[in-house]
Amino acid sequence: MDRLERFHEARRRLSGVIRVTPLDHSVTFSRMTGADVYLKLENLQKTGSFKIRGAWNKISRLSAEEKAKGVVAASAGNHAQGVALAATEAGISCTIVMPAVAPLAKVEATRGYGARVVLKGSNYDEAYEEALRITKETDAAFVHPFDDEEIIAGQGTISLEIMEQLPEVDVLVVPIGGGGLASGIAMAAKEIKPSVRVFGVQAAGAPSMVRSLAGKKPTALDSVNTIADGIAVKKPGGLTFDYCRKYLDGVVTVDDDQIAHAMLLLLERAKLVAEGAGAASLAALVSGKIPCPGKKVVAIISGGNVDVNLMSRIIEHGLSKAGRYMQIVTRVPDRPGSLLKLLNIIASEGANVVSVEHDRLRQDLVLGQAEVEIRVETYGPEHMRRIEARLAEAGYDAIHGSDVR
Amino acid sequence: MDRLERFHEARRRLSGVIRVTPLDHSVTFSRMTGADVYLKLENLQKTGSFKIRGAWNKISRLSAEEKAKGVVAASAGNHAQGVALAATEAGISCTIVMPAVAPLAKVEATRGYGARVVLKGSNYDEAYEEALRITKETDAAFVHPFDDEEIIAGQGTISLEIMEQLPEVDVLVVPIGGGGLASGIAMAAKEIKPSVRVFGVQAAGAPSMVRSLAGKKPTALDSVNTIADGIAVKKPGGLTFDYCRKYLDGVVTVDDDQIAHAMLLLLERAKLVAEGAGAASLAALVSGKIPCPGKKVVAIISGGNVDVNLMSRIIEHGLSKAGRYMQIVTRVPDRPGSLLKLLNIIASEGANVVSVEHDRLRQDLVLGQAEVEIRVETYGPEHMRRIEARLAEAGYDAIHGSDVR
Repeated sequence: MDRLERFHEARRRLSGVIRVTPLDHSVTFSRMTGADVYLKLENLQKTGSFKIRGAWNKISRLSAEEKAKGVVAASAGNHAQGVALAATEAGISCTIVMPAVAPLAKVEATRGYGARVVLKGSNYDEAYEEALRITKETDAAFVHPFDDEEIIAGQGTISLEIMEQLPEVDVLVVPIGGGGLASGIAMAAKEIKPSVRVFGVQAAGAPSMVRSLAGKKPTALDSVNTIADGIAVKKPGGLTFDYCRKYLDGVVTVDDDQIAHAMLLLLERAKLVAEGAGAASLAALVSGKIPCPGKKVVAIISGGNVDVNLMSRIIEHGLSKAGRYMQIVTRVPDRPGSLLKLLNIIASEGANVVSVEHDRLRQDLVLGQAEVEIRVETYGPEHMRRIEARLAEAGYDAIHGSDVR
Repeated sequence: MDRLERFHEARRRLSGVIRVTPLDHSVTFSRMTGADVYLKLENLQKTGSFKIRGAWNKISRLSAEEKAKGVVAASAGNHAQGVALAATEAGISCTIVMPAVAPLAKVEATRGYGARVVLKGSNYDEAYEEALRITKETDAAFVHPFDDEEIIAGQGTISLEIMEQLPEVDVLVVPIGGGGLASGIAMAAKEIKPSVRVFGVQAAGAPSMVRSLAGKKPTALDSVNTIADGIAVKKPGGLTFDYCRKYLDGVVTVDDDQIAHAMLLLLERAKLVAEGAGAASLAALVSGKIPCPGKKVVAIISGGNVDVNLMSRIIEHGLSKAGRYMQIVTRVPDRPGSLLKLLNIIASEGANVVSVEHDRLRQDLVLGQAEVEIRVETYGPEHMRRIEARLAEAGYDAIHGSDVR
């Protein structure tokens, strides 16, 4: 079959099942990057990520006999929800194996979409083994999260939408975990418009595709460590490696601070919730890893399923890194009025106090001294330096910094 | 001029300046309410709220002579940003008076849109007085946040979009602060489709329109108190009172817990950031205040400009109220292993520990006892009760509850 036709077929199958997500132009991010930035909002896709595209395409290609036996998948995240909803909409049974440590919200969401959830193992690999075991035992179909032609074709339908929404697109930026999304998007986009450039983005703590491309074969990392759990994949697939090698113009990495900053920007400026993997493409643009001045660039915001507890922490961390949250730790004489004097200086500089902790029990304190830890909200780095200078002037021996938590 | 024509004119002026925001169908919220729920996403509007519609319409109606003198407005929030961007796009000067206590992020955003910001007074009323003074002194035009025909006409353009996006709409739900948005939306909608019903929503801590309608004249509240600062208005305008009285089918109130819950639902389920005022309409639907089973209902999500610090707190509060966050305060013998034993019970019930505080210095503790405060994430109320029962069974004298912070 013609390569492009495979994507068009997938799109026809997906029609009426998935949502054609908005492609939003962003004035703010365009200004920040010098490019003309558009966001493809797969975080607003059903189940909160693009994964339902591939899952539905895969499931709808099963024979009636296969469908009767149901499907099995292993995932701690978006793939679980995508497969669960796709199976439920197709009216077939579905078992998802999740590591026992999976966030409660994701377990509940997967159950909510109609799947039977099996909690097993302490990491993805162990859950994967269990899923293969169940697949063998029940003769069900295993739905791989990325290394499958039908999955790749499903994810690639995103490019067909983009090409209609913005035919003049120059550059696509795509997060890479296992490589299914990047393979589908790059292949479909270049089959339609060979001049388009497609870049992949990985988390610096999980650079499996970067390593694999450098070593010219799929290579496993010993471990992965990133807040972008959606792209924390140890090893690309055989198919996805080949496609990424053939179709991508490059792969860059972004670290967790850059990812957290992009998540915060999306929350504050675009009013959108993106998970770490979903914000990685914007992180690469904002941090200058993929410079494309004047070009029409589409960043794929691949998903929005972030644990709200993590979101809280990312907000604080992000504000802190941006110099908008400041922690002042200093010592004051342990007598009435000392704390007030310090707070007065901070107030006169127009900084909002977020919290104050006052401790006179620490063992390393000289008797008659108290340690004070104050967290304040500032206008930014310049404001922070002004406060620091005022405190130094007033004789405070301050340990300060923006690094809260 | 024909009433409806005024809205169409405003819309022509706004064309190319504002964004036609998406009207999103929500499967989740439809299930939760029994209605067919759509969200009109004015949180994705330029400047993060609908306010630019009215501001632009007002400014574009000024004469060349008036424009040369610039505009003045008073606001701690969305109106400031709306007027600032509208003035900048129109190429005229703009002064915004904000209370000195305005959130830093909003001050920065308003400056970022090109306004001169004057910080004055400790509340909106004082900033408003200063704005009137500057207006008089400079002979500039004052842009009222709601009580103005051109502002109302601008906000009403939202209804024209909705009527095209969903002609079969049955019910509109609109937040009310001063009443400009509700006046415009209700009037325009009913001029086009008299059968449509329009309900207003106010914060229980700022029910000025409710009181005014009950008293049959615009009535001022002594004070307002709500997390929905966008609708914390003490008194409706004369125009907006008349229009709301004439066109609305009812006004309900929602309390801060209901608003916070709706904000959390939008974050978690719709991947959207809404401020308190922006979530009020959904809060009214989800809490059953406006029952409309089977009807096609549009909730206006009026804005997304929420301070991210507040967002963090709302997330925690919301999880807590939903029984997904639990605080356990109990006493354990102050000897090695006591804490471990307690944590074992919690772990065996599958709850994730968020934080542990261990204190043996509190004065009301018997010697040899330590107080432990543990915060855990749970699956929900039922799970919480199971943990409570297990702790009681094991002899812990636990003070527990979901009310964190």
